[in-house]
Amino acid sequence: MVNSNGKFTDRAIPEPTLRRLPIYQNYLKKLMEKGVEFTSCTQLSEALKFLPIQIRKDLAFTGIIGKPKVGYEVKELLETIENFLGWNNTNEAFLVGVGNLGTALMSYQGFKTCGLEIIAAFDINPDKVGTEINGKKVLDIGKLGNLIKRMKILIGIITVPGDFAQKVADIMIENGIKAIWNFAPVRINVPEGVIVQHENIASSFTVLSKKLQKSLSRE
Amino acid sequence: MVNSNGKFTDRAIPEPTLRRLPIYQNYLKKLMEKGVEFTSCTQLSEALKFLPIQIRKDLAFTGIIGKPKVGYEVKELLETIENFLGWNNTNEAFLVGVGNLGTALMSYQGFKTCGLEIIAAFDINPDKVGTEINGKKVLDIGKLGNLIKRMKILIGIITVPGDFAQKVADIMIENGIKAIWNFAPVRINVPEGVIVQHENIASSFTVLSKKLQKSLSRE
Repeated sequence: MVNSNGKFTDRAIPEPTLRRLPIYQNYLKKLMEKGVEFTSCTQLSEALKFLPIQIRKDLAFTGIIGKPKVGYEVKELLETIENFLGWNNTNEAFLVGVGNLGTALMSYQGFKTCGLEIIAAFDINPDKVGTEINGKKVLDIGKLGNLIKRMKILIGIITVPGDFAQKVADIMIENGIKAIWNFAPVRINVPEGVIVQHENIASSFTVLSKKLQKSLSRE
Repeated sequence: MVNSNGKFTDRAIPEPTLRRLPIYQNYLKKLMEKGVEFTSCTQLSEALKFLPIQIRKDLAFTGIIGKPKVGYEVKELLETIENFLGWNNTNEAFLVGVGNLGTALMSYQGFKTCGLEIIAAFDINPDKVGTEINGKKVLDIGKLGNLIKRMKILIGIITVPGDFAQKVADIMIENGIKAIWNFAPVRINVPEGVIVQHENIASSFTVLSKKLQKSLSRE
């Protein structure tokens, strides 16, 4: 799955597995801090409420194999997951749109461990330009294209209102961004070869709301 | 799938379908505004970049059947999806933790259409208590339990730092909250019968980052 250069090869990893790996990583770090040396699928299952078989399958994707009766060495498992996720490489990103959500993302502590570093943000509002959030500068949107090119930034995060999202995406792509994380409530079009991930908060709520309806209708 | 009371019955809907339905709903609203009367899987596919077969399957879950050569009537499809999602009922929620993310959620315009209404927020910081965000009051955290009970609120949104998340969840559950949407970067434990959905922003980033690695390794 991961070849000798640590590059990701073609065996498809289910997205739910990818989303759970950071949850294991986070929990394993806590075990490390507590000085716990070994863990098992059963113990992980109790702590994280995933099925043991699911955990075994998820971890197998990273290439690690548990030892019978012993389970996994915490340190080895943690390192294997982090290598697998590529969290030892830093992913530098620019963020555009310093509203509440943009500010929340810039201040989010959880990104440190997963190797995402928002190195600067951009906004159109002169009151925001020149300020700092979490130690990162807010720059004028006019400088976005040029800085992407000069700094060879590959990841762009969009937190502008819907009406401006496509325009920001176009500037990003034109200057070399290869992956866009879009939080604006509209879908943006990108050419082939550019990855876009839409975060639709209302969609997430739908899942919760539907489960609640179902649970209430059972009572 | 939806019985005569509009209640959700037991046929399981895949979560990815549930997450796409609001995307169709959003796009269909735009078609309505433009005066478009009919649409088809092919047309939806071009606009939204999902496969036509996927779209057909997703829409079939709502109970609607497309007409040969005509497709779907936009108005009927929109209403069917909204009924199916229960977006005609309002879901009232309390939010705890008025930081950047909490403020972003309170100001998020996309919730209107999906029937989520955050009717009040709670915080421990006296500078925030008494203020208003997007027309909604910020109240003292001490009032949370009592107000959940009195107003029979079922949904709680947690946007506090990780260390306080479990404590807030416990107060919520003790007073009758049945569904928790947790944005804090820790997993919280809930008793059986209570639904919890963890939003892990770092997990979402992992998916994007992995796709980017894969795409770069192909070049």
